[in-house]
Amino acid sequence: MDLAKASPAEVRSLIRAGELDKPTSGMCAPYAQANMAVLPKELAFDFLLFTQRNKVPCPVLDVTEAGSPVPKLVAPKADLRHDIPRYRIYRHGELTDEVTDAAPFWRDDLVAFLLGCSFSFEGPMIEAGLEIRHITDNHNVPMYKTNIECVPAGVFHGPMVVSMRPMKPADAIRAVQITTRMPFVHGAPIHIGDPEAIGISDIDKPDFGERSDIKPGEVPVFWACGVTPQAVAMAVKPEFMITHAPGYMFITDVLNSQLSIM
Amino acid sequence: MDLAKASPAEVRSLIRAGELDKPTSGMCAPYAQANMAVLPKELAFDFLLFTQRNKVPCPVLDVTEAGSPVPKLVAPKADLRHDIPRYRIYRHGELTDEVTDAAPFWRDDLVAFLLGCSFSFEGPMIEAGLEIRHITDNHNVPMYKTNIECVPAGVFHGPMVVSMRPMKPADAIRAVQITTRMPFVHGAPIHIGDPEAIGISDIDKPDFGERSDIKPGEVPVFWACGVTPQAVAMAVKPEFMITHAPGYMFITDVLNSQLSIM
Repeated sequence: MDLAKASPAEVRSLIRAGELDKPTSGMCAPYAQANMAVLPKELAFDFLLFTQRNKVPCPVLDVTEAGSPVPKLVAPKADLRHDIPRYRIYRHGELTDEVTDAAPFWRDDLVAFLLGCSFSFEGPMIEAGLEIRHITDNHNVPMYKTNIECVPAGVFHGPMVVSMRPMKPADAIRAVQITTRMPFVHGAPIHIGDPEAIGISDIDKPDFGERSDIKPGEVPVFWACGVTPQAVAMAVKPEFMITHAPGYMFITDVLNSQLSIM
Repeated sequence: MDLAKASPAEVRSLIRAGELDKPTSGMCAPYAQANMAVLPKELAFDFLLFTQRNKVPCPVLDVTEAGSPVPKLVAPKADLRHDIPRYRIYRHGELTDEVTDAAPFWRDDLVAFLLGCSFSFEGPMIEAGLEIRHITDNHNVPMYKTNIECVPAGVFHGPMVVSMRPMKPADAIRAVQITTRMPFVHGAPIHIGDPEAIGISDIDKPDFGERSDIKPGEVPVFWACGVTPQAVAMAVKPEFMITHAPGYMFITDVLNSQLSIM
């Protein structure tokens, strides 16, 4: 099966059957993939408010009813307990398990948040002829903690995480235009140029993912990143949390083009 | 004082002193005004989730901490108990009081939601040379309940309310472009043309506000409306709710231009 051309339901069905355990990058190309954070209901209001106050790094695509593993808006036939290839289980901020099925850990008081992912805007940039360095070089996107504080909400607080793509200035301008069309999936960059201006001391040492080459004449372009809510949730050390494993995303039934306003 | 040119702080101070009790349309022209819905904390998660699932009619600008009357993000020196000219108090879905100060009714368990208002996109349309009929004719905008169901969340459910502005087709196209730039304040229209297609049987009898003349060659253009959350909340008959009185809005410190992505 060509996973890039497969339907989200087909790929989720392979994952659910335990026949697919690898990063989802490039699968079901036209469809939006999502980060997941699952928290006890007692933290759900604070976390939802945090995402509301930090819409750029934390673009919510769906929130389940407490106890339900079904993301009714973005994939009504999916089951979030089984349909992600790899999960991480955290207790009091410590990673205690990495598993391929979350059902044994699911509880009746859990609320799952699905958050937009930058895969959604990389496709339109590539279609517009822009080079995405980490895709060209086949490595994970570099991500950095910044000195930009998120707006706190209840118990949640922490720094914004950004992803970085090196570009020629003319391409950076085009990238601003393209990603501006996707305000519900991180939107336009939050910074172009000097990494130190946003608290990044060494551009060659990302906090997550892998470094990208920045060629002569290129500038680093920074977008708010969907890793922010995980980093923030970990800073707060909730009693219990389930997330996807980085790179092993949930594949929704929503087309990336549906998340674009133009 | 020229209220159109006054600062939000100046106008809120007049309101707080009891010296200004009229609709806020046109006041502090460059600044965004907001609808308000105040609900007990026990309903806050469901209502926040409802706004999240219905971002087009319910664009959240700020949510207060439980018990706090201070909208820290959009007007950190304001007090929502005093700074709106006129409030409505509802008990179990019944309007029981209309008052100019909400302090006697405020409770420690209340959470205030401020929601974007179409005033924010009327300015840019007028600047672009479009006629806004209800402004030309100096009456309230016509608003209608539709047959478009909002996505339910917890206890909240109900129909989308829309506002209508008649326009020549070329102006309607321009209006789509202009309001697309404001995805966090209702964004693009949700319908153009036949009112019956969205469940409006008589365009001359709006459910809220006043009728607008539709001239030969014009089409009705419909935007999702910030009255939706009030209509929905009333359908649900919460034990207690405070809202602004229609037309008597909260004036924020946020520029309308800050709510535009281009």
